[in-house]
Parts: sequence; C-alpha cells; structure tokens
Amino acid sequence: MLVIKNSGGFDPHDQTCDLKTMPPTIGVFDSGFGGLTVLRALIDRLPHARYAFLGDTARLPYGSKSRRTIARYAAQSAQFLVREQGAEFLVIACNTASALALDAIQDAVPVPVLGVIEPGADAALAASKTGDVLVIATDATVQSHAYLAACHSRGLRALEKACPLLVPLVEEGWTDHPVTAEVIEIYLNELRSEAGERGLNPDTLVLGCTHYPLLRTLFEQAVRPGAKVIDSAESAAQAAVQLINGRATKSIADPAAETQIRCFATDSVEKFERLGSRFLGRPTGKVELVDLGG
Amino acid sequence: MLVIKNSGGFDPHDQTCDLKTMPPTIGVFDSGFGGLTVLRALIDRLPHARYAFLGDTARLPYGSKSRRTIARYAAQSAQFLVREQGAEFLVIACNTASALALDAIQDAVPVPVLGVIEPGADAALAASKTGDVLVIATDATVQSHAYLAACHSRGLRALEKACPLLVPLVEEGWTDHPVTAEVIEIYLNELRSEAGERGLNPDTLVLGCTHYPLLRTLFEQAVRPGAKVIDSAESAAQAAVQLINGRATKSIADPAAETQIRCFATDSVEKFERLGSRFLGRPTGKVELVDLGG
Repeated sequence: MLVIKNSGGFDPHDQTCDLKTMPPTIGVFDSGFGGLTVLRALIDRLPHARYAFLGDTARLPYGSKSRRTIARYAAQSAQFLVREQGAEFLVIACNTASALALDAIQDAVPVPVLGVIEPGADAALAASKTGDVLVIATDATVQSHAYLAACHSRGLRALEKACPLLVPLVEEGWTDHPVTAEVIEIYLNELRSEAGERGLNPDTLVLGCTHYPLLRTLFEQAVRPGAKVIDSAESAAQAAVQLINGRATKSIADPAAETQIRCFATDSVEKFERLGSRFLGRPTGKVELVDLGG
Repeated sequence: MLVIKNSGGFDPHDQTCDLKTMPPTIGVFDSGFGGLTVLRALIDRLPHARYAFLGDTARLPYGSKSRRTIARYAAQSAQFLVREQGAEFLVIACNTASALALDAIQDAVPVPVLGVIEPGADAALAASKTGDVLVIATDATVQSHAYLAACHSRGLRALEKACPLLVPLVEEGWTDHPVTAEVIEIYLNELRSEAGERGLNPDTLVLGCTHYPLLRTLFEQAVRPGAKVIDSAESAAQAAVQLINGRATKSIADPAAETQIRCFATDSVEKFERLGSRFLGRPTGKVELVDLGG
C-alpha cells in the first residue's frame, strides 16, 4: 500500500468505518493498468480518500473476448473491490468493460458504479461548438461503437478511429518521441480526411483510451488551433467526484484524511510496478497479486 | 479449409491414411496467427502436404502467463491438432511456447514436435563468422532468455533486445512504412551501441518472433553491409522438412498430392482471417472456431 504522508493503513473489514467521519474507499477497476490515469485524476480531485485499484492483468486483453466473458470477469473484479477491499464507489476505468459490462457490474455489486464512456461523451457535448467530434480509441472500443452511441444520444455527430499503435508506444515510454508525434499526425490526418469526406467539421477530439492521457501534450500540438482535446480519464474522474460528493460530503472535505492507495493485479505485478508509475504520476507502491480464478 | 488446386478435402479420422502413400498431416501451433509465417515457409518447401494450423487466440498473449499455465494451454492445443486433426508432426510456431513448454508438448502427444528456437540458433551458428549475434524478439521471449541459452550452448555470444513496437506495426499493416523503418533503426542502434559497450562484433541478426518475417526487407536494409538476417520461421520450416523427410520420404515426393490447409482459432476468427493472409501469403480460407476450454 502506498500512503501519501504517514498513516497506519486501513482495514477494509473494519466495521467501525463511517462514511460521515472516515474518508470513503473508492474502487477503480481496469483490465490492465492504463486505468491508473483515471486513478490519478481522482486523486488530484479527492486527495483525502482511500483507493483500491485492481488490474485484471491475467485475463487481458478484454477486447478480443465475448461480452459474456467480459461481464463475468468484470463482475468478479468489481466484487473483489467491494467485498474484499470495502469499496463504497466503483469507477470502471476500462473502456471495454464500460462499453460491454457496465450493467453486469451494477447488478453484481450494491454500490454506485461509473464508467468512462458517458462522462467522455458529456465532456464532448460541453466542448463542441460544431456538434462534430472525433473519437480515437483501441480497436476493441471502436468495434463496440460505445462512444459513437453515447455521442449520438447527445445529438453529436461522431467519427471513430482505432489507433492500435498508441498503446504500445505509451508502454514503450515514447510519450514525447518524434515517432509518436508522427504516428499521431498520420492517424489524425486519416481521421480528418474521412471527416471531410462525410461533411463533418469536427472541433473536439475525444481520447477514448486510458493510455492516451500520457500523450495529451502531443495531441494538443497535433489538433487544429482552437480544437479541444477531451481526456476521458479526466471526465470520468470529474463525474465520479460529483457522484461521491453528493453522498459523502463531510468526509471528502476532511483535510486530516490521507491519500491511501492499494494496487492489486491478477498477474504481471512487475510490469505493473515498472510501468504503472508513469500512468499514476507517482510510485504505485507494492502491487499485490490476487487470484480471481479462471 | 483452403485447398490449393481442387480437392475433396481430407478426413482426419480416416484410418486408411498411410504415410507411405498419403501426404502427411503437419500440425502448426501458435498462440496467435504470427505462426502463419512458419506455415508459409513450410508450404514453400512441402507443397504436397496437408496442414492444420491452430491459433489459441482466446488465451493470448502467452507471454504474460506462468510457465505452468502456458504448458497446459500448449499441451491442449497440441492434443487438438494430433487427436482431432490427425497431425503426424507438430511445429510449435510460437516463441513463448517453444521456450517454456516444448517438453510439456512432447510429453502430451505421441508425434515428433519441433520448436522455433533451436533451429534459429542453428542458423545463427551457420551464418556468423564472428560468433557474435543479435537477437530481437518480443518482451516475453527475451525475458525467457531461450535464444540466449540456445546461442550460448552453441558457443555463440548473443545479445537480446525486446522490440515491443514491431508486432503492432506489422498488425497495423505498416510493413513497408517509413515509421517502421525508423523504429527498426532506433532499436538496432540501441542494440549495436550496447554490443559495442560489451566488446561484441555481431554480424548476424536473428528475427526471434514470427511476426518479423514481414519486416525482413526493412531489416535487410537496416543491418550493416555483409551482416546476415536469420528468419527463425524459415529456419524452423527447414528443420521441420528435414525431420519429416526422414520419416515420410515417399509421400512428400508425391506431386499428385495437393496443399490442403485448415486453420483453426479459439477466438477472434475475423481478425485472423483479415490479417492472417498477410502472414500466410495467400488467403487463410475460412477459419474454424474451436473451444479448448478454459
């Protein structure tokens, strides 16, 4: 567990916890560790809380699996965070699980659950003047068309593109590298060209993958002047804070409470520890291995 | 099933098959579809054979899983090819499974089994004059140090490097793209710089990943003049042909036999069909979905 400032840690089975007097425990779930960007955005907004992050790294990538399988994995993961770690709120910091399993997760646990897609679409709606937005994401997220549907339901016109090279570029650490800038330029040119053919006039780019916030500077340099870049990790954190503030105002405001972070993974804890700090913006601390079964 | 020329197909349960009169059935296994480059190299050498290829796409990547889990998955896959598809020879066209599970596969099936690593190291030994070789592969293969061990056991000095961007670049179809050439240049410069620091004088580059043969032209342009590029898919196919020729000479030579290919995958058959033809050099035909269990 990583405790910012000193602390004696927390016991999730401590029945004396009171939401009005104790900081809330927020569970954050991803299939990998990209969702640490969402955790980072949450900590920026709610430093006086306890966080339990689970990366289901043994079973990633979720993107190539069936909806039923993803729902089962995500529900098991959510139950671990709620039952074992005492999470009182859940943020699904995984686009695939948000797109395909949000209902299943909500059915599986008795706490409020928030995904990343709806907040991203809300932020796009607030940002766009033309009503036309571009969404970039992984292949799996694009194939789910979840962002497209969320944009359409808000009256936005949207064009999606899978950018499969960006996750490996981030994981290679090339977040400020000329090659990455070139790849982004190529992807955005293809997307803008297709937008032009369809008569769209996009002024907003939604980063629909939890890895992409690490490329935010490159994206801001690559978009047309005046265009907005929407970071769905930031949007999700913002929405989560509104939800949590509505339920536990007193404890959130308690400046005596300390940021406490516990990170769990179902496999590859070394890679998680090695790369995770780049996403979290601070060391992940010791990542604990958990077995959720097959 | 893809049949080159016309054919009535084959029945793996046909007990009248005789190795002396019928073309042999060769099973080729990979965790994904990169191993189709090995199948392609086999077909080039043994066009008059029957092939069954299995990609265990539901459970990839193998690289992040434990040796025990990989051994179980690989053994199940091998048994499918032998028991269900009648394979009389198995080629493990997967670096991770070759590195971590070759013994387990050999124990699981009663047919000859060949991996990709030893043939690659043999080819490096034959090619290198300085005795110093460079090996590039995925992160998982490098972490297994299987090529390093195979090179050392042949008296070669070897330096390995993980090149995690190359698989996604190949899968994006950027096999002849300036960005890919630049990434290769960066990786090779880092590797040559490290070789220099260690006093090595490498003259041979081993492509230790089944995706890399699609980048062979770029690699040949990027290495120093006179340096050799060893394609472990080609080396494995060459070794397999020697093994098979020693057992089934007559049928191999039968020009009346036709190339028959059946491709199986445990998930993502659409992606397999869409991308697989690039690796195989011809259409994969209809990819059949199989369930090997968890």
